[in-house]
Amino acid sequence: MEITFLGTGAGLPAKERNVSAIALQLVEEIGAVWLFDCGEATQHQILHTSIRPRKIEKIFITHLHGDHIFGLPGLLGSRSFQGGETSVTVYGPKGIKDYIEICLKISKTHLKYPLKIVEIEEGILFEDRYFRVEAGLLDHGLPSYGYRITEKDLPGALLVDNLIELGVTPGPVFKKLKLGETITLENGITLNGKDYLGPSQPGRIVTILGDTRYCQKSIELAKNADMLIHEATFASHEGKLAHDYFHSTTTQAAEVAKIANAKKLVLNHISARYQREDSVQLEKEAKEIFQTVDIAYDFYTTRIERKGGSSE
Amino acid sequence: MEITFLGTGAGLPAKERNVSAIALQLVEEIGAVWLFDCGEATQHQILHTSIRPRKIEKIFITHLHGDHIFGLPGLLGSRSFQGGETSVTVYGPKGIKDYIEICLKISKTHLKYPLKIVEIEEGILFEDRYFRVEAGLLDHGLPSYGYRITEKDLPGALLVDNLIELGVTPGPVFKKLKLGETITLENGITLNGKDYLGPSQPGRIVTILGDTRYCQKSIELAKNADMLIHEATFASHEGKLAHDYFHSTTTQAAEVAKIANAKKLVLNHISARYQREDSVQLEKEAKEIFQTVDIAYDFYTTRIERKGGSSE
Repeated sequence: MEITFLGTGAGLPAKERNVSAIALQLVEEIGAVWLFDCGEATQHQILHTSIRPRKIEKIFITHLHGDHIFGLPGLLGSRSFQGGETSVTVYGPKGIKDYIEICLKISKTHLKYPLKIVEIEEGILFEDRYFRVEAGLLDHGLPSYGYRITEKDLPGALLVDNLIELGVTPGPVFKKLKLGETITLENGITLNGKDYLGPSQPGRIVTILGDTRYCQKSIELAKNADMLIHEATFASHEGKLAHDYFHSTTTQAAEVAKIANAKKLVLNHISARYQREDSVQLEKEAKEIFQTVDIAYDFYTTRIERKGGSSE
Repeated sequence: MEITFLGTGAGLPAKERNVSAIALQLVEEIGAVWLFDCGEATQHQILHTSIRPRKIEKIFITHLHGDHIFGLPGLLGSRSFQGGETSVTVYGPKGIKDYIEICLKISKTHLKYPLKIVEIEEGILFEDRYFRVEAGLLDHGLPSYGYRITEKDLPGALLVDNLIELGVTPGPVFKKLKLGETITLENGITLNGKDYLGPSQPGRIVTILGDTRYCQKSIELAKNADMLIHEATFASHEGKLAHDYFHSTTTQAAEVAKIANAKKLVLNHISARYQREDSVQLEKEAKEIFQTVDIAYDFYTTRIERKGGSSE
């Protein structure tokens, strides 16, 4: 589980920070990449990474402001042009379907893969054996969602030593036991795989929020998250500006992380008024409230490791 | 009159060439910049030039394919965000109005300047004392226009020596004569300014074509142009590919320049299949037919000088 920030600025592109997009790389887990927001030139940013557009299978849009969606038609079109054939699902607020369909229609962009567009409401959007994704409504003047991505717990490692002690030979039988199946050995003994697995490994939780004022919903979505990605458009002392424009300050983001008991906070969506050299100060403001903070920059990549090591 | 190529690739962005956009800088002439097409990330490219978005007063769209329009909503929005207050007129094929209005509406982008959108047909789109712009329909499967920009002739220089010989003193009278007015000197002699102006200086002609196959209309639009900007998506030997995809080859572009008696040809809209090192060969192919050829690259800037020097 790796996260690459493709655009970390606010409102409009600047040389240092592009508009919003985050890639959640689940290549090791499920062979896919999920995108969160898709500001203009997200596909251009991807050209400078190892991300392959055809691997993008889900795109979650937090809200419909231009700096979060204007890269979507181009990305979807280029993915087709480059031979992407597997389906893509876009989740986003009401309006996202019209936006995409009209842009593709007027530009005569014919996708060679199935595109599904889901206009969301609060609640669970998606769940399978690996992941669950929930959405919650934030406070941004127009509907802006936060996403909580929960990885399902992984089965524990096979207790190999115990099995060898029982005379079980490593091989196909081990594989079955690891899957929790019940088998009968040649000597007639029956073993239930579940009895020979170590403790299961808790899945990881990532919370990616759209633009928002400080609000209770952010805390709910970020509860015990391994990583919280929170906007910090303004510095600590700009609380009034943040409130007036429906955004957050560095310290408000840190408050959310602290109350939610998150493990790590990444500050994102930084106003272009702050230069590279201001980052230290912005990070410092947040750290006065919550210890483990990084400030995102374009192409910043961070891994979220499993708590109990590998299951292999 | 200066032209900066902001995106010179075809279909989708690549590291070396962005999708289509050309800036015609008329800052010296009328204090404005005109944009031709606005592919995704045109506003990003502009960040790396001296072009000021608030100076953009007209945008001409050749056709509605995504690589020519997906940068438009972002550029219009950012121009407002950055304090642009003067009006902008967008000219483009039928559909451009819906596209822009829907994108701005769904993204809640409120422009602080007047935006006029003109859905065009063939003919003269615009004419004032400085310029005339005509559009002609090319051959590209969907409506694709070429634009012919004609600068009006400039009055010639004042024949200062002749006037001084007549006893006219340099000053306000010179100014009136230069404007072609008739004045009466203190000694009763009447002079018509028009008799004391050197030969007028012919205005310049620039022809900027949208995507197209080789066609007669291109030749009409490029007649005697000082500069013809023609797409050359494919190399000379790819005539079949060019035809099938409604594009042109290098040699077809050169044929148009030759028959139209253009002064200079710039090859543009180059497929990503060609690398930087292929440019020499592409240019060479065109030069076998038409001598004065440049191949465009992103940020390539070229001036078109007046034929008769300055009028000052």
